[in-house]
Amino acid sequence: MQSLRLQKYRESHGLFIAEGPKIVGEFLSSAFRIRTIFATESFPEPDRLADARIEFVRISQKELERISLLKTPNQVIALIRIPECRNTPPEVTGNLVLALDRISDPGNLGSIIRTADWFGIKEIICSKDCVDLYNPKVVQATMGSMARVNVTYWPLEDYLPQLQGKVPVYGASLDGGNLYSQKFAENAIIVIGSESHGISENLKPFIFSMITIPGVREQKNTGAESLNASVAAALICSEFRRQHGFLSG
Amino acid sequence: MQSLRLQKYRESHGLFIAEGPKIVGEFLSSAFRIRTIFATESFPEPDRLADARIEFVRISQKELERISLLKTPNQVIALIRIPECRNTPPEVTGNLVLALDRISDPGNLGSIIRTADWFGIKEIICSKDCVDLYNPKVVQATMGSMARVNVTYWPLEDYLPQLQGKVPVYGASLDGGNLYSQKFAENAIIVIGSESHGISENLKPFIFSMITIPGVREQKNTGAESLNASVAAALICSEFRRQHGFLSG
Repeated sequence: MQSLRLQKYRESHGLFIAEGPKIVGEFLSSAFRIRTIFATESFPEPDRLADARIEFVRISQKELERISLLKTPNQVIALIRIPECRNTPPEVTGNLVLALDRISDPGNLGSIIRTADWFGIKEIICSKDCVDLYNPKVVQATMGSMARVNVTYWPLEDYLPQLQGKVPVYGASLDGGNLYSQKFAENAIIVIGSESHGISENLKPFIFSMITIPGVREQKNTGAESLNASVAAALICSEFRRQHGFLSG
Repeated sequence: MQSLRLQKYRESHGLFIAEGPKIVGEFLSSAFRIRTIFATESFPEPDRLADARIEFVRISQKELERISLLKTPNQVIALIRIPECRNTPPEVTGNLVLALDRISDPGNLGSIIRTADWFGIKEIICSKDCVDLYNPKVVQATMGSMARVNVTYWPLEDYLPQLQGKVPVYGASLDGGNLYSQKFAENAIIVIGSESHGISENLKPFIFSMITIPGVREQKNTGAESLNASVAAALICSEFRRQHGFLSG
C-alpha cells in the first residue's frame, strides 16, 4: 500500500489508492474498476460487490491507521485499477477544454479537476510533465471528481497546433488582456501554465489570446505577483461560463 | 528547526520559518523581524542586515537540505519572529474583509491570503480553530503575501454580531443566491466556511445573505458537490471587485 505513493509502483501494479467514504463512493458509481475495498465497521458494505468482482475486506481502526496514507484516515481505502491510457487526444467537441502545462503540485491538479467538474468541463489535457493523475494527493484533492472528468496526458506541442483555425486557444498569463473586458468564444481551449514558469515558450505561438485576471498590482504596484494556478484556472473557467449564460440566475 | 513544524514549539520559541528567495525576500522588505537567515552561496547577502540586527549564516547545499522542511530546498531559510497578537479585532474600515471559519487545510489558508493580496484585501479574520498562520505550509502557500495581509485570530461569534447594521455580511454557501445575479455592497465581510462543514450554525444568524457560485450541479444534478474553499473565496472576491469597477479594463 505504501509503495503506491510512488508512480513507478502504481504503474507496475496498475493500481492507485482512494480514501474516505465520499471519494470511494464516487469511484464506486463510476466506470473505474475497483479491485479491493478495505473498510472499518462504520462503512456499510456496498451492494453488488460480487457483480463488479470487488474484494471487500473488513479491517480494524488500527489496521486502517497503519495502511492509510492520510493523517486522519476515514473509514475506507480502495485499491482501484488504473485504466488503459488513451492513445488519441480528445477531439474538439465544441466544449470548453482545459490544457495544463507542467502543473507540478498535486493539490493544484486535484483542485483543477474538481473545479472543471463543477463547471461541467469534461476534458482536461495534461502535458506529459504534469504531476501524475494517480498520485494519492491528486486523487484526494479531486474529492471524487476524477470519476467524471477525463484527463489525458498528451504533448501539448502536438495537440495545440492541430486546433489552429478550429477553436480559439486562450492562455492564462500575467500580461494578457483583462479577463473581464473580453468576449470569449463559447468553445475554447484554456491553457494554464506551470506554477513557477507560466506557459512554455514553445506553446506561445499557438495561443490566440492571453488573458490576465486583474488585481491591484497593475494599478498600484503592490500586492501578490501571481495567483495560485488552480485559483487562476477557476476564475477563468467561471468567466467563460458566465459569459455564455450558463451561470445566470 | 524541525521542531518549528509544530505550533507549540513555534509559540514557545516565538519563531516561524520561511523558505526560498521569493518568500524570504518579501519578508525582508516587510515589517516582520527576521532573526536569522541561512543561505547558500547562490543567495546574495541582503543589504543592511546589521541595522535590522539580522544574523546571516552561510551554509552548504548539504546543510540546507538537512535543515529545510521542503522536498526541494531553495537557497535560503529564514527564522522570523512571530509578531505580538493584536488584542482588538480590526475595525470595519470601509474595505472588503474576509472572515474564515474553521479553515483547516494549510494550503487553503495560504492560498486565500495570496488571493486576498492579489485583490487588494488587507484584512482577514480567522476563527480561533483555523489552522495556525505560522504553519510552514501556510507560509509557503502565501508566496510572501503574508507580509502584506493582516491576519487576526478572533472569535467570529464575537466579531460578526458587532457588524450588524454597519456593514453587510455575506456567506459562501451551497444554497444561496447566484453570485452573478446579485448586486454587492462595495464594503462587506465575506465569510468562508470550513472545507468539510461549511459555515458554523451559530454564525448563520449574523449573515445577511448567502452566496452560491453557480455550477452544473444545480442544472443537471451531476458534477462536483462543492468547490475547494480557496477557489470559492477567490471567485467571490473577484466578483466583488469586478462589480465595483476595480477590475474593469
